[in-house]
Amino acid sequence: MNLPIETPAVLVDLDIARRNVRAFQAYADRHGIRVRPHIKTHKLPQMAELQLETGAIGITCQKVSEAEAMVDGSARIKDVLITYNILGEAKLARLARLNERVTLSVVADNAAVIDGLAEYFSGARKPLAVLVECNTGADRCGVATPDEAAALARRIAEAPGLRFGGLMTYPPVGGAARVQSFMSEARRLIEADGLQVPIVTSGGTPSMMQAAEAPVATEYRPGTYIYNDRSLVARGVATWDDCALTVLATVVSVPAPHRAIIDAGSKVLTSDLLGLAGYGHVLGRDDIHIDQLSEEHGRLVSDGPIGLKVGEQLRVVPNHACVVTNMVDAIHIIEAGEPKTEWSVVARGRVL
Amino acid sequence: MNLPIETPAVLVDLDIARRNVRAFQAYADRHGIRVRPHIKTHKLPQMAELQLETGAIGITCQKVSEAEAMVDGSARIKDVLITYNILGEAKLARLARLNERVTLSVVADNAAVIDGLAEYFSGARKPLAVLVECNTGADRCGVATPDEAAALARRIAEAPGLRFGGLMTYPPVGGAARVQSFMSEARRLIEADGLQVPIVTSGGTPSMMQAAEAPVATEYRPGTYIYNDRSLVARGVATWDDCALTVLATVVSVPAPHRAIIDAGSKVLTSDLLGLAGYGHVLGRDDIHIDQLSEEHGRLVSDGPIGLKVGEQLRVVPNHACVVTNMVDAIHIIEAGEPKTEWSVVARGRVL
Repeated sequence: MNLPIETPAVLVDLDIARRNVRAFQAYADRHGIRVRPHIKTHKLPQMAELQLETGAIGITCQKVSEAEAMVDGSARIKDVLITYNILGEAKLARLARLNERVTLSVVADNAAVIDGLAEYFSGARKPLAVLVECNTGADRCGVATPDEAAALARRIAEAPGLRFGGLMTYPPVGGAARVQSFMSEARRLIEADGLQVPIVTSGGTPSMMQAAEAPVATEYRPGTYIYNDRSLVARGVATWDDCALTVLATVVSVPAPHRAIIDAGSKVLTSDLLGLAGYGHVLGRDDIHIDQLSEEHGRLVSDGPIGLKVGEQLRVVPNHACVVTNMVDAIHIIEAGEPKTEWSVVARGRVL
Repeated sequence: MNLPIETPAVLVDLDIARRNVRAFQAYADRHGIRVRPHIKTHKLPQMAELQLETGAIGITCQKVSEAEAMVDGSARIKDVLITYNILGEAKLARLARLNERVTLSVVADNAAVIDGLAEYFSGARKPLAVLVECNTGADRCGVATPDEAAALARRIAEAPGLRFGGLMTYPPVGGAARVQSFMSEARRLIEADGLQVPIVTSGGTPSMMQAAEAPVATEYRPGTYIYNDRSLVARGVATWDDCALTVLATVVSVPAPHRAIIDAGSKVLTSDLLGLAGYGHVLGRDDIHIDQLSEEHGRLVSDGPIGLKVGEQLRVVPNHACVVTNMVDAIHIIEAGEPKTEWSVVARGRVL
């Protein structure tokens, strides 16, 4: 039976999302870890409110414009960490305005970013909290050693208008041991230098149920856990029943016995592979492989007869939920199995 | 010298775009081929107007909502081909309204789509033109044989409210010979059945300068040619100087001697690889490889010292221009090397 929704469309099952949020909050509560979810997955003030109501202490955003959209969208969002090096006068001006509205913190992994923040905030009424980003093996941003972390902590502490806020890392999957050793040593050096380390924050959905293995971290920032996706099912940390987000698509062509085309391509599912083969999982059809996407076409192939009819709807669990919510202006909310309403994805496309 | 543009941002050099459009139009004029550009690359009424002023006879869209945005955006757009199987009452209603406003045609590759169109248009004042989509080797949509094409042409011709509009294909790169043989045979069968074949339309930028090798095609639908991208440079059909679209990014971190991070990730550059290694080309820096993207970070690596400074802007030619314009609400227009204005990407995200 087709749903009365024009396709392609992104559906979010609110019952599953609630269950996912509660499950990690319960784990974190048991281990005394504060939860600060990353909103990049949903980009929705409503979902942030659900996370805060369940026990989260605040939210994480990646960009200033994302934080603005979230704070504009909910008066209940009062504590925001932006886990990004922020540069340039336009962004600093926006940051300063945000800092007047909520409890705000940002990160830095180099002196140029700290000096830029300090120059802008030196005359500010309220200091800006800055955490030092540490590289615990993901090899993206972050200082390479605890010594460098301590040097930047000192630089922040001495900068006018800034306050040293602690340590932040985005570790690789299974990186708890490295988080523990790096952050413990950095904290020791910083405390020996006479500074407090108010927060040590780590993140990542795949390893969240091992968060307690790095007890140095006071806070955890999961993102994808609210929706889950094919990449997390492949890692064995979620089942298809835990996937709150699906893409509803319609079969538009069955041009060969083993091939069908759906109306969802890379403009909805995206080309993110996350190490997987294929571009998503068709619910209820383990035998089908989505082997190719163009912008508006998804190609489904099967070994046996594909057994699909033109006009039939399918639900696809995408490889990566976070990037899919960036492709649509609104998502459809499902409750008790029924479409209930549409929510505008207000923080979509906020790359500044 | 940094441009006075907040990053990440998508820049389009209008001088290069004009030159690219003129170059293919000149080729097509020499060979008597009509040009119907695919707007999926730019999603901008202004660029469609440039193409029409240069000699294009109309535009191609992939989805109904894209066509609506383009027609709403420019009174000069009067002829639209939607190269997609259109299904479902909501889309058919939108299609019928569009058909009252412009010369409209769509495609179909199966009886279910034709019957759906016929049911909806049987009472319409103005018939809808429907072309048969043929598979000439890309193995996406399209009937598999000229015989099937002829059968569907007959079905369209006999359907109330529809008019047989011709044949359409999106061939694989280098597929001119197959286009010529398939389409010639299909046309022969259809004409033998007493029907006219008003249009035979083919497309694809990589092989556009061989369009004349399939003289059966009366019309060609290039898309990416207006901007070009890294995939076309890799194929040898464009140079970096022909790339009108670039992503302007800022170096936000240089955490290791051979690694730097820019503020453009998959939310701007996308994860499209198109068979390439890496996620884009940094102009002027052949030695740099963009080896990893997360949503808001692009990782640049080099064999030697990377020699970049935090705060420095870079320009990146993306792998695939079309998908990048879908990621931003507006692009920055560059003329004579200077930022001139911003254009809202009105057909962005139009997947319905």
